[in-house]
Amino acid sequence: MHNDTPRRALGRLGRPAILAAAVALACGASAQAPASPPAQAIDPARLMQGFPPPPAYRIHIDNWQQYPQKIWSFQHTRELFPTRRLAPVGPARPLPVALRALDDLQVGTPEAPQTWPQMLAATHTDAVLVLHQGRIVDERYFNGMKPDTAHLMFSASKSMAGLMAAVAVAEGRLDENARVGTLLPELAGSAWADATVRQVMDMTDGVEFTEVYTDPKSDIFAYIGAMGWAPELQDPGKPRGIQAMLPSLKRTHPEPRGTAFRYRSPATDVTAWLAARATGLSLTAWLQQRLWSRLGMEHDGNVMLDPSGTEVAFGGVSASVRDLARLGQMLLQRGRVGREQVIPASVVDDLARGGDVRAFEAAGMPHRKGWSYRSQWWVNPNPPHSFAAMGAFGQRLFVFPEAEMVVVVFGSHPQPIAALVDPSHQRAFTALIQRLSAR
Amino acid sequence: MHNDTPRRALGRLGRPAILAAAVALACGASAQAPASPPAQAIDPARLMQGFPPPPAYRIHIDNWQQYPQKIWSFQHTRELFPTRRLAPVGPARPLPVALRALDDLQVGTPEAPQTWPQMLAATHTDAVLVLHQGRIVDERYFNGMKPDTAHLMFSASKSMAGLMAAVAVAEGRLDENARVGTLLPELAGSAWADATVRQVMDMTDGVEFTEVYTDPKSDIFAYIGAMGWAPELQDPGKPRGIQAMLPSLKRTHPEPRGTAFRYRSPATDVTAWLAARATGLSLTAWLQQRLWSRLGMEHDGNVMLDPSGTEVAFGGVSASVRDLARLGQMLLQRGRVGREQVIPASVVDDLARGGDVRAFEAAGMPHRKGWSYRSQWWVNPNPPHSFAAMGAFGQRLFVFPEAEMVVVVFGSHPQPIAALVDPSHQRAFTALIQRLSAR
Repeated sequence: MHNDTPRRALGRLGRPAILAAAVALACGASAQAPASPPAQAIDPARLMQGFPPPPAYRIHIDNWQQYPQKIWSFQHTRELFPTRRLAPVGPARPLPVALRALDDLQVGTPEAPQTWPQMLAATHTDAVLVLHQGRIVDERYFNGMKPDTAHLMFSASKSMAGLMAAVAVAEGRLDENARVGTLLPELAGSAWADATVRQVMDMTDGVEFTEVYTDPKSDIFAYIGAMGWAPELQDPGKPRGIQAMLPSLKRTHPEPRGTAFRYRSPATDVTAWLAARATGLSLTAWLQQRLWSRLGMEHDGNVMLDPSGTEVAFGGVSASVRDLARLGQMLLQRGRVGREQVIPASVVDDLARGGDVRAFEAAGMPHRKGWSYRSQWWVNPNPPHSFAAMGAFGQRLFVFPEAEMVVVVFGSHPQPIAALVDPSHQRAFTALIQRLSAR
Repeated sequence: MHNDTPRRALGRLGRPAILAAAVALACGASAQAPASPPAQAIDPARLMQGFPPPPAYRIHIDNWQQYPQKIWSFQHTRELFPTRRLAPVGPARPLPVALRALDDLQVGTPEAPQTWPQMLAATHTDAVLVLHQGRIVDERYFNGMKPDTAHLMFSASKSMAGLMAAVAVAEGRLDENARVGTLLPELAGSAWADATVRQVMDMTDGVEFTEVYTDPKSDIFAYIGAMGWAPELQDPGKPRGIQAMLPSLKRTHPEPRGTAFRYRSPATDVTAWLAARATGLSLTAWLQQRLWSRLGMEHDGNVMLDPSGTEVAFGGVSASVRDLARLGQMLLQRGRVGREQVIPASVVDDLARGGDVRAFEAAGMPHRKGWSYRSQWWVNPNPPHSFAAMGAFGQRLFVFPEAEMVVVVFGSHPQPIAALVDPSHQRAFTALIQRLSAR
């Protein structure tokens, strides 16, 4: 399939399958993505302009993840889906500005030299913000994005749910060693039942969930149909909504639970469900009470809802660049903002330390050698050490504790393949740190 | 059918028809509503509480208009549908408070005495605010509603679209005598083509559109399917979205255009489309630029979108009580707020004067004798003279120019039948005026 054009590959799948593929790939879970996006001669600046827009410029639930339509979609999720509000409270906490001249910063390879701005353009960046020692050293917007735009985070949302669960564990509300089935009786008869809370948080729970887009029987089709990103895939006979679907997962992998990292979106939704049951708060309510109300957020964010009103924890959070940077800076400060300990320092220390490297190796991600996945955060112990929230099409929140740097990137890359942005990002972030520390 | 219980009547229709009936009735266009809501023993305070809520307390697109589910739905439209934001800009314009003791105000009949609070409860009021001479004399919230809650206005939204069109006419951007087909080529082959802009604004355009809920061939079914309130009614072979549906209306009534008022939601959507084409602004953008940015609004509002991203002009605006009161006060002040003429005084004068009373009589609404419908506003010349935005289930914005009173009411009445709230409201508003003017 990798040698196929996406048009031909998708053409064989039929319309529902195309939808599902487009949508499912966005979860960032698969390496089986088509090799390139359909070629289209659409001017992104004209998307959704006009009454109505010309047909090729209209965006709806069937094409919102196509390129270049996604440039508009990712900045307008609330206009495509039901959402719950994340509201700033009180005055915004100022982000001191100390801009650095970075246009000449070389971030490419000897064979393919590239400056920082060239890299941002080549990786389809919608916005970037770099904080160094708490000050804005770079902030750029592209593709119609503005400071107050809430941009979809895709799977970087997972780290929000992970944070909620990790704080609940640290504060004694959620027992990480408890079995899922005892905390969520709804899942008692499913493959989740005997997994521990920690295993689900770290995605080593062993629950089988297939995301093979060429197989119409793959679990992902029903899951996406149930959670509302592709109504055509909703089987009227099947349960509707994420929480109604989760009990239907009945199979486990042969390896012992806790030994192999497998990146699957439903594990995030179970994490969020566990955290909600433990705290009595929805993901949105927790983010609002704990973060949006206390970090001096500046702009509206939102969380996408499934057809039953449950948050799409695995990929539905939208936020502004600056607010996500404020969240990152809070983490850099080990949970402390001013005089307030917003989340326990131990939670951040645990993220920074990372998870089970050997379990991670089982996932077979050669480009992330030595990494681990802890409480829904990606942890890279190799210098420059970081932990990160990562979402399809280029959504990134990187925290570099030793380098005292936070980087937020939003993107609309035509493809969901992390390997198309990660090496460029890693080189660029390393070069940034060198430049900033040399000051 | 009027003697039928609603359960039995709806039972004969099958599930899609029930949906359509429930939804379509919400437009407030029909007198063929079932006689009473299904009896349900649900505590409204528990709606959508829990992870997940108990089945009977879950709200989704299939039950959002049922009672008591609607109590939650009408306060959470953005959690059920795609929406576009209406944002406050700058500091809120203070609404001076001069509360009056009104708990003893008698607003009933000699046969059935009733106080103001009793009337509000009996008509399932979610919130009420009364401004007299620009000051808040009464402000009450029920059913979990808060000052910052954006409540769905249903067909009171129509008056927002009418205001936009009327201002466009007054400012010379939209010719009220032009034929629709010349301004919207998309409608050139439809029944709208030869109607004038003014006829559409006043709903005397003569376009046939049936809203007979017991007839599966009725136009309303396809319309609602197309605009997203009942996805099950979406015919995959039919056009999707309001603007794609409007050209399919091909029949006209026998009477000459301009002679008979017929209340039909699609006329609002054509009005909004004409106004958008004329101004280059979507309804939301116009409301934002002209009203939300200039009236000192205090809270977020929003406008529901159909599956093609077009505003549901006929019934999709949500706003807070206070912000709608600010809008009413602006109208009371003939478009002037402080030193700023926000909309032309002539537009307000035209609303206050009203439209064609004889055309209105043709609609056969005996409980609205002498009324007219002008630019999507209901005008009652009988004392106390008023013009009003009115929406199903008790949504009301009344402006009483001579009495210098503005009343905003949001409700969640089990039934969409205006006659169940209008007489109570009229008596109450008259009593209010007497009390306030006697001060």
